[in-house]
Amino acid sequence: MKLNPNDNLVIMAGGVGSRFWPMSTTECPKQFIDVFGTGRTFIQMTYDRFRGIIAPENVWVVTSQRYADIVAEQLPDIPRGNILLEPCRRNTAPCIAYVSWRIKAKNPKANLVITPSDHLVTDVIEFQRVISSALNFTAETDAIVTLGMNPTRPETGYGYIQADLQEPSLRNREIFRVDSFKEKPDYQTAVKYLKSKEFFWNSGIFIWNVGTIVNSLRIYEPEVSRIFEDLLPVYGTDKEQAAIDKHFPECPSISIDYAVMERADEIFVFPADFGWSDVGTWGSLHTLAEKDAQGNNVIGTDVKLYETRDCVVHVTEEKRVVVQGLEGYIVAEKDNTLLICKLEEEQRIKEFSAE
Amino acid sequence: MKLNPNDNLVIMAGGVGSRFWPMSTTECPKQFIDVFGTGRTFIQMTYDRFRGIIAPENVWVVTSQRYADIVAEQLPDIPRGNILLEPCRRNTAPCIAYVSWRIKAKNPKANLVITPSDHLVTDVIEFQRVISSALNFTAETDAIVTLGMNPTRPETGYGYIQADLQEPSLRNREIFRVDSFKEKPDYQTAVKYLKSKEFFWNSGIFIWNVGTIVNSLRIYEPEVSRIFEDLLPVYGTDKEQAAIDKHFPECPSISIDYAVMERADEIFVFPADFGWSDVGTWGSLHTLAEKDAQGNNVIGTDVKLYETRDCVVHVTEEKRVVVQGLEGYIVAEKDNTLLICKLEEEQRIKEFSAE
Repeated sequence: MKLNPNDNLVIMAGGVGSRFWPMSTTECPKQFIDVFGTGRTFIQMTYDRFRGIIAPENVWVVTSQRYADIVAEQLPDIPRGNILLEPCRRNTAPCIAYVSWRIKAKNPKANLVITPSDHLVTDVIEFQRVISSALNFTAETDAIVTLGMNPTRPETGYGYIQADLQEPSLRNREIFRVDSFKEKPDYQTAVKYLKSKEFFWNSGIFIWNVGTIVNSLRIYEPEVSRIFEDLLPVYGTDKEQAAIDKHFPECPSISIDYAVMERADEIFVFPADFGWSDVGTWGSLHTLAEKDAQGNNVIGTDVKLYETRDCVVHVTEEKRVVVQGLEGYIVAEKDNTLLICKLEEEQRIKEFSAE
Repeated sequence: MKLNPNDNLVIMAGGVGSRFWPMSTTECPKQFIDVFGTGRTFIQMTYDRFRGIIAPENVWVVTSQRYADIVAEQLPDIPRGNILLEPCRRNTAPCIAYVSWRIKAKNPKANLVITPSDHLVTDVIEFQRVISSALNFTAETDAIVTLGMNPTRPETGYGYIQADLQEPSLRNREIFRVDSFKEKPDYQTAVKYLKSKEFFWNSGIFIWNVGTIVNSLRIYEPEVSRIFEDLLPVYGTDKEQAAIDKHFPECPSISIDYAVMERADEIFVFPADFGWSDVGTWGSLHTLAEKDAQGNNVIGTDVKLYETRDCVVHVTEEKRVVVQGLEGYIVAEKDNTLLICKLEEEQRIKEFSAE
């Protein structure tokens, strides 16, 4: 398959994954960890699933300065200059604004997929079909496309996208206009969403051409836009990082959903089904990962379990562990930190991990 | 108080303390660990409790060659030459034979206390009174004296000494002849022992003069005796270790109880009550050690417990630990090994720790 030189991939990798403490730490957050014990980290799996549809030189990563070396080490095939470094965290809108103008400076005809770096996709064939179809759509339109996941349960941990399923796009019959974006619902609401069939999980994966996002940002976030537009002369030069370090912090902290999605008109959703999860919690990892006959998901090379069921045991390679008599617990050990906690109490991990 | 130059202390420190795994390992067994977090290890506490009744130059330690440096580091006040090194493990009889002839070569009038290195005594004042009284007794007699602990519960984890309480010794009214030694009993038998009032826990602490033990060994273990008697010319010389390395392994593996106690005639017991425990298990440690309001005994400087009760949490100093929702567990971490196990299953630790 010949790759379209306009197609670019943007991997957002600035998160800190605090719900996976202590495996995920600010030194090495979730996206850089091999959570499933497959030999590939989340960001590597993210990169891998675009293999064959995006050229490595068109893959961009936006991350924090402290993770520059980890990204370069884990994704050696992408140009070092494609790793864009934020001097501070400002949520997704400034991140996307920066990379969009940066790519536009190189190729004004660029067509972009924006993806989080720490999600799981199990059906990569279907994923690639959906991405390619969406890229074809945005190459020809000024549409902002989100990928909506067919919900399989009344999940309260995700945001939802409500689609207008009456009128598919004429250019792509799988793509629909968005009626509204919904915050994480309570359980009753999630059940309603599930039944109505017109709500989809917001995957955080977006497809658009660079002109579309740049114009949208100009309209809805003119101050942010001005910052990155003013830097057009320095992109790709050795003055880029210093200029970003100086001006990036001037941006407000604002999500792309709030800045653009919930305001713009030409918003579409591509409902899809490719085995997606944000693997946001130890519990979701336990659900998704391979388990032994007793329901234990074990990462570690010297772990012995006795009378232990439905546990997640994640320890570093060299660690020797014996667990006896636990049911429904997380046992996680990394560097110098050990967590033992009931899976059902995992929402308190942020509290536990506070220094 | 003037110290009697004939009084010697022998600390047996060759054990491996496998029931305290992973805190106790073959690299650093229980006797060298500060299990209570007091700043003093078991062997140091053992040494400390003889302070003022035995001169440091009369303190001897018999241990394995691999622990020579640990002993010298933990007991810097005793002469390095008093640390006797076994090239292999042969139980207590060869250990005691070696040190007895070694001491006899230096002082044929020596009077000895033999003690394990990994027990706890809480009432050191009473302990010193008992030891001094027993030493006075054996200085004047050929008696073999054992210390019997007043049992406070039907313990099945200790051996028992049955005393003939009808006839106290004329020289010391607290000392009685031994009727019999009993192996660790089952629970029903232990209850009977407790009721009868004539059974005492075998503390493994012995007092005798060096002539008495040497003669007993000559009678009951002539082969072992010959080995160490033949080495009389080399004791205290730079040929001692090589000779021991060569001949010590020729000894059979045999306990002093079996070799002498259960065979000799002049065996006495000194029933006593000085808050003794062999701290043989995590459970006994949990019983003895300081606990917080939720019944948790914690050693570690950065341990946070949530909804956790009746647990023993022992981790190395620099370890950060969060435990949520455990009741009645051991959480122990040392070097690169983590154990999580119900306290009630601790008898299986040997199984768990097998490589």
